[in-house]
Amino acid sequence: MIIGAIEAGGTKFVCGIGNEEGVIVERISIPTTTPDETMNQVVTYFKDKQLDAMGVGSFGPVDLDESSSTYGHITSTPKTHWNYFDLVGELRKHFSVPIGFDTDVNAAALGESLWGAAKGLDSCLYMTVGTGIGVGALVEGKLIHGLTHPEMGHIVVRRHGDDHYAGRCPYHGDCLEGLAAGPAVEERWGKKGHLLEDSPEVWEMEAYYLAQAIANYVLILSPKKIIVGGGVMKQTQLYSLVRDKVKDILGGYVQSDQLLDRIDDYIVAPGLGDNAGLAGAMGLVLR
Amino acid sequence: MIIGAIEAGGTKFVCGIGNEEGVIVERISIPTTTPDETMNQVVTYFKDKQLDAMGVGSFGPVDLDESSSTYGHITSTPKTHWNYFDLVGELRKHFSVPIGFDTDVNAAALGESLWGAAKGLDSCLYMTVGTGIGVGALVEGKLIHGLTHPEMGHIVVRRHGDDHYAGRCPYHGDCLEGLAAGPAVEERWGKKGHLLEDSPEVWEMEAYYLAQAIANYVLILSPKKIIVGGGVMKQTQLYSLVRDKVKDILGGYVQSDQLLDRIDDYIVAPGLGDNAGLAGAMGLVLR
Repeated sequence: MIIGAIEAGGTKFVCGIGNEEGVIVERISIPTTTPDETMNQVVTYFKDKQLDAMGVGSFGPVDLDESSSTYGHITSTPKTHWNYFDLVGELRKHFSVPIGFDTDVNAAALGESLWGAAKGLDSCLYMTVGTGIGVGALVEGKLIHGLTHPEMGHIVVRRHGDDHYAGRCPYHGDCLEGLAAGPAVEERWGKKGHLLEDSPEVWEMEAYYLAQAIANYVLILSPKKIIVGGGVMKQTQLYSLVRDKVKDILGGYVQSDQLLDRIDDYIVAPGLGDNAGLAGAMGLVLR
Repeated sequence: MIIGAIEAGGTKFVCGIGNEEGVIVERISIPTTTPDETMNQVVTYFKDKQLDAMGVGSFGPVDLDESSSTYGHITSTPKTHWNYFDLVGELRKHFSVPIGFDTDVNAAALGESLWGAAKGLDSCLYMTVGTGIGVGALVEGKLIHGLTHPEMGHIVVRRHGDDHYAGRCPYHGDCLEGLAAGPAVEERWGKKGHLLEDSPEVWEMEAYYLAQAIANYVLILSPKKIIVGGGVMKQTQLYSLVRDKVKDILGGYVQSDQLLDRIDDYIVAPGLGDNAGLAGAMGLVLR
């Protein structure tokens, strides 16, 4: 089967060709500008590829309710050009193949469960900490949807006692994303993250927020594996800081060997590296 | 079908007989003392009832992993008599019928989705605020399990600025349960909840904590209905306080009519009243 995959992001659309084994044969990157411009290039890329199916993991919010008149649309995004853009509909105009569609982070969680760090598990959580904080999850073998889709990056967290930064989420100010996404780190400390490498207080505070969120995800979803990636996690010292703080917060309450004794193997980096989203988009076709 | 149902709680075991329509024909209550004493009465009650199946919703933590050697056990509970008690095993000694088993709150969520306030929905959350805070959830038609089972009552919440109470969770101090369960309200204000009815600051603070938790559940699970019950919610003024604060916290970010325009019908009291747990235990048989 030849699968066309799209990881539709706010800054770029990564497009690629692969198969049902999760093998990516080729990939290209197209800048996210206006729907007209971007989709033109997307369609041109896939046109002669003789696709059997397509899978799309998209930035959100998106409408995933198949009974809705705006199914397949990006909905109320701050990227105004894309507000209520019918992404799946536009693809259907050009490709008469089955199209799988979900959020970028749900796709990545699926990809990691099929071929990555959570391979073989029916439950995992995928978190990306970059220009925003996005989280997808597979629970009991299913990607979570409901009223809408999860927006776990925007949960309320307890503020760090030394943190006087206001937060920069346009909706919530100091929610998790407002306090701990890459741009918040930069604005709070006045420098880009990679220039703060030698400032332990920066990563201590960052881990404080991420660990709170992860502890809450554990308590609410009980995932069998937690995968954390994204640009901010290139500061790899964060992994052990976060693991330690998650253990502290949970205080031994959740009785699981993975948490108590093997947390290094429980909170991990993506097994698929930067391909989690694209491979996961391919995986959406298999559902 | 004659179903024997048990809602196994820390203070009492509610036992009853019903059918696959969720009709409860009779119910009795047995105090939770030692496993010997309590289980003796439970077995005696059900002995001649000619059961076709049993369903058990239990206080936790419990082991729900069918491949585990301690499946069906209550695990590391502070109620020491019941520590690692093999609840399902004990029932199997006396009744050779299929036995469904899950947490009390997962059972209640299931009951509400089959016959209560979330009837017909494949997604809902059931929260009880009483001597503890317990939460169960149905997502994509399935009760959530994973690494263990959710323990959503113990999430981290942001502290209220006027709250100097330390919290009373033996594991976490000031987690949600430590700050907002019934005994915390009583200890903080020095009086039982029903004597504080005319002190608006009490319920304002209580709603502040419950609303944070519910907002986080919405962002993480996106349930299609949120059902809140338990002793503390007998202060029914809490419902509108909580709804208003959930809306405030979410700040219009989650685009859903239920949240934006019909939150009175989204955050609701249990449709099954105090029978949610017992009916839900019956429902476990049907899975």
